[in-house]
Amino acid sequence: MSALVGVIMGSQSDWETMKRACDVLDELGVPYEKKVVSAHRTPDYMFEYAEHAADRGIRVIIAGAGGAAHLPGMVAAKTVLPVIGVPVQTSTLNGLDSLLSIVQMPGGVPVATVAIGKAGATNAGLLAAQILGVTDADIRSKLISRREAIRASVLGSSDEL
Amino acid sequence: MSALVGVIMGSQSDWETMKRACDVLDELGVPYEKKVVSAHRTPDYMFEYAEHAADRGIRVIIAGAGGAAHLPGMVAAKTVLPVIGVPVQTSTLNGLDSLLSIVQMPGGVPVATVAIGKAGATNAGLLAAQILGVTDADIRSKLISRREAIRASVLGSSDEL
Amino acid sequence: MSALVGVIMGSQSDWETMKRACDVLDELGVPYEKKVVSAHRTPDYMFEYAEHAADRGIRVIIAGAGGAAHLPGMVAAKTVLPVIGVPVQTSTLNGLDSLLSIVQMPGGVPVATVAIGKAGATNAGLLAAQILGVTDADIRSKLISRREAIRASVLGSSDEL
Amino acid sequence: MSALVGVIMGSQSDWETMKRACDVLDELGVPYEKKVVSAHRTPDYMFEYAEHAADRGIRVIIAGAGGAAHLPGMVAAKTVLPVIGVPVQTSTLNGLDSLLSIVQMPGGVPVATVAIGKAGATNAGLLAAQILGVTDADIRSKLISRREAIRASVLGSSDEL
Amino acid sequence: MSALVGVIMGSQSDWETMKRACDVLDELGVPYEKKVVSAHRTPDYMFEYAEHAADRGIRVIIAGAGGAAHLPGMVAAKTVLPVIGVPVQTSTLNGLDSLLSIVQMPGGVPVATVAIGKAGATNAGLLAAQILGVTDADIRSKLISRREAIRASVLGSSDEL
Amino acid sequence: MSALVGVIMGSQSDWETMKRACDVLDELGVPYEKKVVSAHRTPDYMFEYAEHAADRGIRVIIAGAGGAAHLPGMVAAKTVLPVIGVPVQTSTLNGLDSLLSIVQMPGGVPVATVAIGKAGATNAGLLAAQILGVTDADIRSKLISRREAIRASVLGSSDEL
Amino acid sequence: MSALVGVIMGSQSDWETMKRACDVLDELGVPYEKKVVSAHRTPDYMFEYAEHAADRGIRVIIAGAGGAAHLPGMVAAKTVLPVIGVPVQTSTLNGLDSLLSIVQMPGGVPVATVAIGKAGATNAGLLAAQILGVTDADIRSKLISRREAIRASVLGSSDEL
Amino acid sequence: MSALVGVIMGSQSDWETMKRACDVLDELGVPYEKKVVSAHRTPDYMFEYAEHAADRGIRVIIAGAGGAAHLPGMVAAKTVLPVIGVPVQTSTLNGLDSLLSIVQMPGGVPVATVAIGKAGATNAGLLAAQILGVTDADIRSKLISRREAIRASVLGSSDEL
Repeated sequence: MSALVGVIMGSQSDWETMKRACDVLDELGVPYEKKVVSAHRTPDYMFEYAEHAADRGIRVIIAGAGGAAHLPGMVAAKTVLPVIGVPVQTSTLNGLDSLLSIVQMPGGVPVATVAIGKAGATNAGLLAAQILGVTDADIRSKLISRREAIRASVLGSSDEL
Repeated sequence: MSALVGVIMGSQSDWETMKRACDVLDELGVPYEKKVVSAHRTPDYMFEYAEHAADRGIRVIIAGAGGAAHLPGMVAAKTVLPVIGVPVQTSTLNGLDSLLSIVQMPGGVPVATVAIGKAGATNAGLLAAQILGVTDADIRSKLISRREAIRASVLGSSDEL
Repeated sequence: MSALVGVIMGSQSDWETMKRACDVLDELGVPYEKKVVSAHRTPDYMFEYAEHAADRGIRVIIAGAGGAAHLPGMVAAKTVLPVIGVPVQTSTLNGLDSLLSIVQMPGGVPVATVAIGKAGATNAGLLAAQILGVTDADIRSKLISRREAIRASVLGSSDEL
Repeated sequence: MSALVGVIMGSQSDWETMKRACDVLDELGVPYEKKVVSAHRTPDYMFEYAEHAADRGIRVIIAGAGGAAHLPGMVAAKTVLPVIGVPVQTSTLNGLDSLLSIVQMPGGVPVATVAIGKAGATNAGLLAAQILGVTDADIRSKLISRREAIRASVLGSSDEL
Repeated sequence: MSALVGVIMGSQSDWETMKRACDVLDELGVPYEKKVVSAHRTPDYMFEYAEHAADRGIRVIIAGAGGAAHLPGMVAAKTVLPVIGVPVQTSTLNGLDSLLSIVQMPGGVPVATVAIGKAGATNAGLLAAQILGVTDADIRSKLISRREAIRASVLGSSDEL
Repeated sequence: MSALVGVIMGSQSDWETMKRACDVLDELGVPYEKKVVSAHRTPDYMFEYAEHAADRGIRVIIAGAGGAAHLPGMVAAKTVLPVIGVPVQTSTLNGLDSLLSIVQMPGGVPVATVAIGKAGATNAGLLAAQILGVTDADIRSKLISRREAIRASVLGSSDEL
Repeated sequence: MSALVGVIMGSQSDWETMKRACDVLDELGVPYEKKVVSAHRTPDYMFEYAEHAADRGIRVIIAGAGGAAHLPGMVAAKTVLPVIGVPVQTSTLNGLDSLLSIVQMPGGVPVATVAIGKAGATNAGLLAAQILGVTDADIRSKLISRREAIRASVLGSSDEL
Repeated sequence: MSALVGVIMGSQSDWETMKRACDVLDELGVPYEKKVVSAHRTPDYMFEYAEHAADRGIRVIIAGAGGAAHLPGMVAAKTVLPVIGVPVQTSTLNGLDSLLSIVQMPGGVPVATVAIGKAGATNAGLLAAQILGVTDADIRSKLISRREAIRASVLGSSDEL
């Protein structure tokens, strides 16, 4: 089945973070593709990717980047597909730079920003699924089951303290 | 036509910001409802709202709040609909508190966070439309036209400098 | 004797921090209970816990959470018992996100916030005891003795430099 | 009836903020006293105030201060009464300095910190009442009624949007 | 004479800041052009501008933008001309977001970042002139004279205190 | 010879930082005393120390503390001797909390604040010596020699690159 | 009588802040001189000033600057007189930039940093007097009287609430 | 061939960062010199270096420093050559102090600031080359080739995920 979600990242070193998004999509059975697309090092390819994603059947784009993280916002400028931005944690400013570079978009071009780092990447996968779930009852019911399983596991965890 | 987007806010004073989201939805012809739902002052109503939103036909929730902004995250915890969080600007910490309270969600429950303040509210309306546009070609084409119009207006603005 | 203090935390991983609160309560002989209660993963259980705590004899609630730390504020919204919030240190923003999410509550629903991390958890236990000590002379005198012992130990420590 | 709550502040200019705490105490019928007590300009008086507050019948101290806000922590060092700290907003760093100076207390001496500025002062008054309400059913029931009234007023406010 | 410096900005509202750069270039007699080029609203035009700037004789680009300020970095990704980035002050985070979005570029694509706001725009104009001055003795000598005049004016200003 | 400088610190764990101040004083032959004096755990002793320091011949006080670092400011409130504050680095906020708690003193009671951590402690020792050097030509000449030696060593270090 | 304190500032616009230091010196009868000395616009004059200050009888230097505030640190690098740095509040980052530029000096060259803005300037004047007071009993006794007067005025101010 | 770029740094310990700039210049065949020049420890040498750099054939200066990083700005005050500032990462504030000390220059004296740490140093080398490339077609073509090689390597890296 062709990919519904495009998971892209600014650098190969972002993979350690971004694979969390892919893990969630695997778990929920949502087909996806994953690629390194750098705003600063492959700008033309980035534009091409964003411009043709919808035509290739992509419905949601997840873009992770760190520092002056321009990838999510620039991709968002080239498509009206929903774009989810993952601020990758940085060694200098801990990802506060990534977060502000991604979330503070001007009116007109939104990026759906999630938390800094791995928790954010996990949530990017879930948010993509929730967006698809708006009209896909099967994904929606998998998301509900996942929540239920987590709920049960948390309720049991008090005994471990 | 029944509302597809639920626009909620923690306080009546957030309306000045949040009406930007409603303006965009009006412009794009997306039916919505708007309500004050306070996480801290009407917690049970908040849960009830979140729990029944999907059944009532709501497909995306936009939630704005300031300070210790718990509304978007708590609503997200009670539904698998996509929840968009708008950090309302505060008089003390300028909305940095709102932003961190909304975006730094733990893995498992995403909030699609947009920019602080009015630009963020505008983008929340657009992002809701983009999410609906994933399977609604009409909204998608309105979004593309809107982008085109803005592009043309920017290109003309150099003459004004 | 039934628990007077409820020590709750958003995740099992917060236990390393929150056990400092329990250590203090053990030391002072204040009966307590400890549980994992997650705002985002077990929202209904959180509300149920907060709503019935007073009836079960709980007089003070200590709630620890990290990141978009909604547990203390949401519990505070569901009870008029004093709620003490402990901002758990995070790997990305060092707990500044936790602190702002907990302390910046809107007028109407206070959370008694303490320092980020382990020192904060210790102080949460002490603050709970001080609150009980308002009308419990025995706890009060134990707190005074504890202070006196610490004072003596500090005065002796110059010799170790 | 003699004062149960001591409301103190580092400077007369903090009164605009701190009167919110007094307004709440007035509203709930909790007797209180209010004084300017400066950590840096009247240090001996501060110690004397803190040391004798309990003997004079004070059960909770609310202390507001801005900048290098040492008043709440120093008072807390001289009494085992619960001390609530209100970070007053500053013209330079917006009260982030006040907040960190108050909340980041070392293990051993807690200060129950509330939000920066006027919302924090309101909440300091409420928190003092909640602490007294632990063993005072009358105050507790007033607090519950206050919450109920606010809840009703929020529920009605959606019509005003 | 054809433009040597391209002064571009993300929005017409940035002109109030960016005209300071143009004032300096006027003062030094450096020919320039000025345009609104938005990374998010006119992405293709931005790439086209950056790609052809060198061919049209532009030798230095000054790019101003605010918030998630992607213009300087994206232009820098499409040319090897020196790109100077001016972080425009924002109403929410005062330009800290603009600064981090511009300066924290990954290794490979530099942006020469100056101070937030109007002082930064003035300095962008001067820096462009200094870059041209590396091989243009006339500009260099004008810059030296400008410094000398400012020095004299500062030396005289003690009398005004 | 009796101590001219009093080096105090809020906790024994600050010694690792504060010994840098003592190392400098040893190097310059300035007699000093060192003590643990905790604002929060030994408040009365702190006041006593500050009040009698001048009488005992102390001419400058160096006070190091971390977190809600009240020691330097409170000592400064009890003496008109110059007080130098050293913000000790913290594990949560890296010493930004210590810095703001020490430096943001209200008008009326100054603390001479130096850099966060070990460099700050070294400089506290030097600043104490510079203050004594205002009227002590011997210390002044040692300080000048120290600067000269460092200058020579830096000038030689380019060869090591 | 010749000046004992040199009050310098990076720009004439800093005078509004720095005159607070002069007001205090006037009040205490400490002779001073005041000058605009810019690190960036009059670097040679700055070095000359710093190098000859001691010879001209100056015993303490107060230096105020904003933004990338290099004046206090550079003056400190050229003299072993105590240098007090006043971080002037800025319109962009509120003086946090000034504060960090002044206080974070490397080991070897201290700057005695005070609070941001006018309170800091007042305290710079007081700190200079306290430094002179180390060996000048007259200044010391004036400082003690000033403290006493302020103490009395604070004690009286509770009646104004 | 005589050096065209001067790479200077405030301390030998900055070399680990600054050698990235030299690596780039080596790679591109741009002749450079490297030196330790400390603003605070060798101020006169710094001024001499800056004053004579142009006469010795230097065309661009790269200056790295950490903390209260005054080197780039002070060098910039003494020359009209373009000065590139590299904020070296610090152990306390992660280089935010270095960044603000370097970038927030007042109008009149620009410093071309790059990212904090090693990525910034790499980019400083590239920016120096880009500045020389304005009039040197050979360097320009090497820069274009370098970009092309990086682009190709990024495009290939998706296969490694």
